[in-house]
Amino acid sequence: MTTTTAFLGLGAMGFPMAGHLARAAQASGGRALVWNRSPEKAQAHAERYGSQAVDLAGCAAADVLLTCLPTSAQVDEVIGALEAQLRPGTLWVDCTSGHPDAAGAQRERLFARGVTFLDAPVSGGTGGAEAGTLTVMLGGEAAEVEQARPHLAFAGKAVHVGGPGTGFAVKAINNVLLAVNLWAAGEGLAALARSGVNVRAALEVINASSGRSNASENLIGQRVVSREFPVTFALGLLAKDAGIALDVVESVRGSAPLLAQTLGLYRAAAQIIGAGEDHTAALRLIEQMNGQEIA
Amino acid sequence: MTTTTAFLGLGAMGFPMAGHLARAAQASGGRALVWNRSPEKAQAHAERYGSQAVDLAGCAAADVLLTCLPTSAQVDEVIGALEAQLRPGTLWVDCTSGHPDAAGAQRERLFARGVTFLDAPVSGGTGGAEAGTLTVMLGGEAAEVEQARPHLAFAGKAVHVGGPGTGFAVKAINNVLLAVNLWAAGEGLAALARSGVNVRAALEVINASSGRSNASENLIGQRVVSREFPVTFALGLLAKDAGIALDVVESVRGSAPLLAQTLGLYRAAAQIIGAGEDHTAALRLIEQMNGQEIA
Amino acid sequence: MTTTTAFLGLGAMGFPMAGHLARAAQASGGRALVWNRSPEKAQAHAERYGSQAVDLAGCAAADVLLTCLPTSAQVDEVIGALEAQLRPGTLWVDCTSGHPDAAGAQRERLFARGVTFLDAPVSGGTGGAEAGTLTVMLGGEAAEVEQARPHLAFAGKAVHVGGPGTGFAVKAINNVLLAVNLWAAGEGLAALARSGVNVRAALEVINASSGRSNASENLIGQRVVSREFPVTFALGLLAKDAGIALDVVESVRGSAPLLAQTLGLYRAAAQIIGAGEDHTAALRLIEQMNGQEIA
Amino acid sequence: MTTTTAFLGLGAMGFPMAGHLARAAQASGGRALVWNRSPEKAQAHAERYGSQAVDLAGCAAADVLLTCLPTSAQVDEVIGALEAQLRPGTLWVDCTSGHPDAAGAQRERLFARGVTFLDAPVSGGTGGAEAGTLTVMLGGEAAEVEQARPHLAFAGKAVHVGGPGTGFAVKAINNVLLAVNLWAAGEGLAALARSGVNVRAALEVINASSGRSNASENLIGQRVVSREFPVTFALGLLAKDAGIALDVVESVRGSAPLLAQTLGLYRAAAQIIGAGEDHTAALRLIEQMNGQEIA
Repeated sequence: MTTTTAFLGLGAMGFPMAGHLARAAQASGGRALVWNRSPEKAQAHAERYGSQAVDLAGCAAADVLLTCLPTSAQVDEVIGALEAQLRPGTLWVDCTSGHPDAAGAQRERLFARGVTFLDAPVSGGTGGAEAGTLTVMLGGEAAEVEQARPHLAFAGKAVHVGGPGTGFAVKAINNVLLAVNLWAAGEGLAALARSGVNVRAALEVINASSGRSNASENLIGQRVVSREFPVTFALGLLAKDAGIALDVVESVRGSAPLLAQTLGLYRAAAQIIGAGEDHTAALRLIEQMNGQEIA
Repeated sequence: MTTTTAFLGLGAMGFPMAGHLARAAQASGGRALVWNRSPEKAQAHAERYGSQAVDLAGCAAADVLLTCLPTSAQVDEVIGALEAQLRPGTLWVDCTSGHPDAAGAQRERLFARGVTFLDAPVSGGTGGAEAGTLTVMLGGEAAEVEQARPHLAFAGKAVHVGGPGTGFAVKAINNVLLAVNLWAAGEGLAALARSGVNVRAALEVINASSGRSNASENLIGQRVVSREFPVTFALGLLAKDAGIALDVVESVRGSAPLLAQTLGLYRAAAQIIGAGEDHTAALRLIEQMNGQEIA
Repeated sequence: MTTTTAFLGLGAMGFPMAGHLARAAQASGGRALVWNRSPEKAQAHAERYGSQAVDLAGCAAADVLLTCLPTSAQVDEVIGALEAQLRPGTLWVDCTSGHPDAAGAQRERLFARGVTFLDAPVSGGTGGAEAGTLTVMLGGEAAEVEQARPHLAFAGKAVHVGGPGTGFAVKAINNVLLAVNLWAAGEGLAALARSGVNVRAALEVINASSGRSNASENLIGQRVVSREFPVTFALGLLAKDAGIALDVVESVRGSAPLLAQTLGLYRAAAQIIGAGEDHTAALRLIEQMNGQEIA
Repeated sequence: MTTTTAFLGLGAMGFPMAGHLARAAQASGGRALVWNRSPEKAQAHAERYGSQAVDLAGCAAADVLLTCLPTSAQVDEVIGALEAQLRPGTLWVDCTSGHPDAAGAQRERLFARGVTFLDAPVSGGTGGAEAGTLTVMLGGEAAEVEQARPHLAFAGKAVHVGGPGTGFAVKAINNVLLAVNLWAAGEGLAALARSGVNVRAALEVINASSGRSNASENLIGQRVVSREFPVTFALGLLAKDAGIALDVVESVRGSAPLLAQTLGLYRAAAQIIGAGEDHTAALRLIEQMNGQEIA
């Protein structure tokens, strides 16, 4: 029996992710529906990948719905618009970088309709989304996770991390670690630059040494030192994710003083540099703080 | 003409580093002298690598001296003991994770004897020291750096990062980045564990995602989650290096609030967990802070 | 016409606060009811102050109910138990150090019964409660605040700070400032003590200088340097209040990196030193972090 | 026998301080010399207080020299210019907010000339300097401190805090506490303002509650909420003092993560807002970080 998927949210990540679903549908004889708030993007997707652009109500026909929206608030809106039409047995896989607290309510609400909700945020950036090598972090019961696995054509790796909401929690912690590693490297390189050290040489050394991170290897040289700051992941969204991470910490009365400071610094950067800039542009605040360009 | 090298300081790093010099000497017909405060280690080195164990004064005969000692203070002592005997034209390559402020004075003092001093700290851990793949960060004039390059048999990469003292500065910044990345991952994983997330699964996800770092990939699973904490790099030495990094920041009146907080946390960990424990044991303080094991 | 008040929650603060209400009732010919989860305390209050101990249902007879409980969760429980019996026109003044988010729901819930709910947390400690000199921070509409003012016999000062929930917000921020000022003084004095400075002399100087705070003037000498740490305000409750403060910051997407770190440190102190210890015992964690007594 | 004093450094603090010495000299029949880098200020002082303006060499005639300069570096310059002319038995009281490390060298250098050097920084601001109520923190031997006491006419309180350099250490810690308390109050008030709380009401409450500090009581209302930011103590100098405080912490390998973060924030504020602005203008950076005026 063939499957109909519907992908809702065709942003920088969702557009190529839904492309992989379209290709998988073509291979298996299934259908791949796509929806976007601004319908031109859905139309463009259909033209590019052979998916089928539908209106929101049309998504209710799918066996598996996948959402990839800016925050849990938009997912709540979409659930509200669709829930009355959903059939029991439908699977809802939310790839949004959502909030663990939202997951519980979303799950209960859909459960009342016979619909299974899984939190399944992804990591890997737009590059990973295009290559189909994203990492998916799944929160839910084991059987539900197995039900979802065949429909993650955009994934290079899909890991079951725990019960409902834990996928969102792991994603938020991953992103606040990105935020810390990126900011710390910025502070360190600014001090070195101000000390007369060649930043490219220092970065080369760090990337061959114990202080390296994904941020130092794949972001700082390409986006900061190059002065390009291409917008693929907005500073405001990383600040939001850091906020979710600290909510996770506080929900267990945990102690994370370093992550907590980091959230404060990114909120400041989003305010001073601009929430719509690339997340790496946070380092332009460090440059202001030090009167020193990282280049 | 063949070269005589002398390697002073046969600790966990220095012992295998000097081994590479011994092998290089055998290949080129040169001599490789070794010295250590406790002479048994020098004797053991001679037996294992065919180097020649000497007393401190014997090192003055070398064309190139290399030091790898716990701190700049021990380098000062060794300079004090040897300087009167050093010949003009000798090259002194200091692989200690030293202090940029010390470098200036050491350089001047040896310059007065006609001896060239370079700061050349290394990164890569005991594994890199054994494999001969260390990264060396060289601070000095370009001509001096070229003079030193042929004598770095333990290096996989040697980068000239700037003028005198900048090698030490880059090393300190690299190490404080290791400290930040490690600590932040510990805070994040402790919160996830307390939230009921499987730590190994979370770590697998992070290591395939944007929040990964050398610390998350090569230290936390192997040393923390495993509960092994093998001592290859002491917590007290990492705290010392973080202190040097903040001295670098302060010397340029820089702003590095995240690195600064990190120093305070590592000083605390060294005090509460023990300066002699492995640097990854700092995360045992995070476990205490959260009442939660990271495992 | 005379008024009947009911005071719910006779803890270290509530017991003397309710005493002032009892005295005021005696002077005006009104009645002062008191309730406590463990009824012996209510009985003891009646004996000491001439109030009238009642069971929970008995509180519904009051014109004005005042609550002073550990957290908003306990207030929710008490509202749940009483709401069906409350008469329209009743005034509910919550002196708990509650959560602004809780205030909204509590207010709505009681509003549906014709009952007015105000958040009215207090500051001034057990000393201020006994002396009747507490500061009350009132959140609500201006008319409601005026309605409440005559019933705050325990107050030295009552300030209308804004709309519903803002009383809780101001209290939480006040308390996190207490937490910061206390912790910072602890860090500073530990460093001075380790430097060989006489702590009492340093404290005398600071208390006559620009770095002084309520914490340095009224807590550190009396509780920390004296090694007495008398429990009048539990460390766990101050950590809870700091958590509320950071929730206030996050609810407006604010940036407060210093307050955020402070929350992490107090969560750690509550875990390592004990949530039931006095809040000043947080400085015993600083002592451990520095291997240095502040005395 | 009458005494000749010389006061070097007639800045915002030194000018009125030297005025008290002039009055004391008139009362006792002694002489009060004054010197300033720009001689017009010394002339103005002589006219206003009846002191005697001299050139730098003229200060060597004094029995007691008092310095009040921006940093220890300027004190070093003055010592260098004067030391050859100083008579054995001269007392040098340095009221600069100096560096403990500098104190040791200054003391030794002057000791070699038979001159006693004491560190004696002051607190109390320009108001205290004018009123003659400054707090002096004296570092040195007990006998030396007693020798200095009669010459502190500008002091309301003079406390012997420990051996040489400890006066500077206590002053630096006092000032970093001012910095913390001020910044924390700014973060808290910004969050409250953004939550719709009346800032003046919140400040009134805090100043009657446990979170109050000298900063909240005497600076924020008068300088920040008023939008006046009068320059009496420069932001750059407070950042410098915070730097000295962290040097004190690091010199004993202490752990002070909160103070350390604070230094980073003030360095940033000095860079972004301006080192020459009043220290309270640091809160304008908090305003930028929050997109919210504290008023």
